[in-house]
Amino acid sequence: MATLNPEADALIKSEDPFHPANLIPELCRGFYTLGWVTGTGGGICIRVRDKVYIAPSGVQKERILPDHIFVLPYPQPNPHGDRVFLRKPPHNLKESDCTPLFWNAFDQRDAGSCIHTHSQHAVMATLLWKEETFTISHQMIKGVRIAGTGAALSYLDTLEVPIIENTPVERDLKDSMEDTMKRFPNAAAILVRRHGVYVWGTDWQKAKTQAECLDYLFEIGVKMKLAGLPTVLN
Amino acid sequence: MATLNPEADALIKSEDPFHPANLIPELCRGFYTLGWVTGTGGGICIRVRDKVYIAPSGVQKERILPDHIFVLPYPQPNPHGDRVFLRKPPHNLKESDCTPLFWNAFDQRDAGSCIHTHSQHAVMATLLWKEETFTISHQMIKGVRIAGTGAALSYLDTLEVPIIENTPVERDLKDSMEDTMKRFPNAAAILVRRHGVYVWGTDWQKAKTQAECLDYLFEIGVKMKLAGLPTVLN
Amino acid sequence: MATLNPEADALIKSEDPFHPANLIPELCRGFYTLGWVTGTGGGICIRVRDKVYIAPSGVQKERILPDHIFVLPYPQPNPHGDRVFLRKPPHNLKESDCTPLFWNAFDQRDAGSCIHTHSQHAVMATLLWKEETFTISHQMIKGVRIAGTGAALSYLDTLEVPIIENTPVERDLKDSMEDTMKRFPNAAAILVRRHGVYVWGTDWQKAKTQAECLDYLFEIGVKMKLAGLPTVLN
Amino acid sequence: MATLNPEADALIKSEDPFHPANLIPELCRGFYTLGWVTGTGGGICIRVRDKVYIAPSGVQKERILPDHIFVLPYPQPNPHGDRVFLRKPPHNLKESDCTPLFWNAFDQRDAGSCIHTHSQHAVMATLLWKEETFTISHQMIKGVRIAGTGAALSYLDTLEVPIIENTPVERDLKDSMEDTMKRFPNAAAILVRRHGVYVWGTDWQKAKTQAECLDYLFEIGVKMKLAGLPTVLN
Repeated sequence: MATLNPEADALIKSEDPFHPANLIPELCRGFYTLGWVTGTGGGICIRVRDKVYIAPSGVQKERILPDHIFVLPYPQPNPHGDRVFLRKPPHNLKESDCTPLFWNAFDQRDAGSCIHTHSQHAVMATLLWKEETFTISHQMIKGVRIAGTGAALSYLDTLEVPIIENTPVERDLKDSMEDTMKRFPNAAAILVRRHGVYVWGTDWQKAKTQAECLDYLFEIGVKMKLAGLPTVLN
Repeated sequence: MATLNPEADALIKSEDPFHPANLIPELCRGFYTLGWVTGTGGGICIRVRDKVYIAPSGVQKERILPDHIFVLPYPQPNPHGDRVFLRKPPHNLKESDCTPLFWNAFDQRDAGSCIHTHSQHAVMATLLWKEETFTISHQMIKGVRIAGTGAALSYLDTLEVPIIENTPVERDLKDSMEDTMKRFPNAAAILVRRHGVYVWGTDWQKAKTQAECLDYLFEIGVKMKLAGLPTVLN
Repeated sequence: MATLNPEADALIKSEDPFHPANLIPELCRGFYTLGWVTGTGGGICIRVRDKVYIAPSGVQKERILPDHIFVLPYPQPNPHGDRVFLRKPPHNLKESDCTPLFWNAFDQRDAGSCIHTHSQHAVMATLLWKEETFTISHQMIKGVRIAGTGAALSYLDTLEVPIIENTPVERDLKDSMEDTMKRFPNAAAILVRRHGVYVWGTDWQKAKTQAECLDYLFEIGVKMKLAGLPTVLN
Repeated sequence: MATLNPEADALIKSEDPFHPANLIPELCRGFYTLGWVTGTGGGICIRVRDKVYIAPSGVQKERILPDHIFVLPYPQPNPHGDRVFLRKPPHNLKESDCTPLFWNAFDQRDAGSCIHTHSQHAVMATLLWKEETFTISHQMIKGVRIAGTGAALSYLDTLEVPIIENTPVERDLKDSMEDTMKRFPNAAAILVRRHGVYVWGTDWQKAKTQAECLDYLFEIGVKMKLAGLPTVLN
């Protein structure tokens, strides 16, 4: 098990604005402006090789500081035991409730970053698409990559985003998210009914741009559905 | 009665960005961006133990300065008499019209902060829910706390926010708000029909994150209602 | 006719952020963010006693500089002759096309500031209220003042905003706006069908907060109308 | 063919905030806020006489730096051969996929700037106007210029924006965009069905203000259509 000593703080101290401990606060401020993480919900984690950087749970996402960031080893030494940390922030903070879900993106897709939003476009999509997947075609889906980490989709493809059912406790989504990622090996994201979405990419830039593309598609899809327009063309 | 002398200004002068006299202006700028306090309506007050910090009435909420902040003792020495101040700003400013309503949150719930918004999502919710309460379930209500200061609600609970009828003068809402808070001891907020909402928490962070959660729920609830979707599941 | 000499520039140079030549650029940036003045449309003028400060026509309203500001004497020495200036900016700029309309607010209501927006809420209100006035009651109209410069309206009053028909050239609205302001002496603003709204107040703060209140009311009124809710209660 | 040498970087280094290499990053940040270029889509190019400044493809448009900007000669020495550059950025960046479409605006309209957005208002307009053009009248269309570079339209004119069908690869739109610009010599922009819009002007200011006017008109047109209001009056 990793020891927590003063040197651990070196893991989150950097002058580089692109260091994960600096990026996560900045990106979360942007997500707050987009309405993705209001009321402490949602967030982003970044993995750089064998280290994962995660924001705390239950805090105002637009006010995170580098000092609030958790660092965990990847993979975890004991996947089914207690979670191991390389660095914990002070103030009795707890790591994000999304941690097991973020781990799915690392384990199942070798992702370098995972974003979770409570975007109302995503939630409305899960309400208006009562079936197992959100589907749309003939829109600007080429910003989305197959499996979230592969080749770009084409305008002529149909994007299919699986929707899993929500549970009261975030970590209880882990197994159904994992199963669904296996059943839909090309899925670039997982929607959670009445809750939000998980999106990932090979690095934070790709995770973020795919999260934006998908949110755009959820938004236009919802508008089309409400206007009586078909969202999939043959 | 508190005397107003030059030392009173020390109550609102601080280098600490988290001092209430600095926080209230900053938070109100954020609320303005969210559309919660346009046209001088709405605001936030913060109570730290025996001192209450309140913004002035009728001013542009995105342009408040620390010098504009009122400080009042809590509890008031003479609850039914003239209001007593520890510090008054210059310029003939008057304390927020919401003061008696904010006091309800302190007296009834031991709150440390109370937020009032004119959010259109809140107002539309009071128009589309013609009954006595706004209700929603199976949404991200876990950011809301029972009574506004207790344990978090669960995804499986039904959130119920009472709606009181508006009056032409803000202070005339005091009694019906107080009665309603007593009749609904678990209520985390009070909606005012055709007017807005009052939300509170044990401190400013919790008041703010709950105000965001509730506004999110009013917004998604209104969207669902207009799309013909049920907002409460059994 | 006023001469234009180097000293004229002193009229628009000030370190005071509340000087009209500094305020107009700042306020227009805010209006741009609100969607009120995109594509060079709309703006604000400020009158301080015998001097009127006006932005140029046809420029990006979020990029105005103090050096772009026109200064005109009030009243004009020759109301029916050529317009007289105390200061003109360089670069062949022309004063705002709204100048004659702003003058109506000074002449008819003794206003100290007038704001013109192309807000989509205002335009949609003029499309959904096909009659001569936009009307709403039992909303937060108490931020609006009778005639735009008098006492505040009450929650129990019905707000009535006259709508005039648009013309291809802005200055051709002058007479119908003036007539309508006389026929509706209590009107706090004039809507222009398929175009936008003119709002005024005794100073820039009151003009701005009333413009925000009215825009809020146009927005909620449009939402109510589209949801089939009555906007005036008896 | 242009050689790429260290001096080429002088083309994108300037202290002047209005230098194209500084303007493009700033303008793209603004477009991101407007929702026009999320997820790396869309952008702006600027032509100053014989030099064209273009942003890279597939990058986050709100994070462009001057160092990322491509400079190309205009006209191209070999229009049907390999594209020639005066300056290429490092990092294996590729010039915007929109380059051939931007070129249409230069060649067909002698434009000094061209903007491409994925605005949802534009996309919804192409879905609700199933015919060959988007049309609207009696709105604030006077900010739009005939052919994008000529005289201003009047309130009494009917604005007509052609809609071309999308293709999976951006460059394959070149010929149909060019044909359509020839068939509609007065068109101020070209909509692309299910994709977005191309807008141009004689310089970046006019391209930007026209893009704002047109986006405003797409937005109000969509709202009117959804509310059952006619968008063209006789």
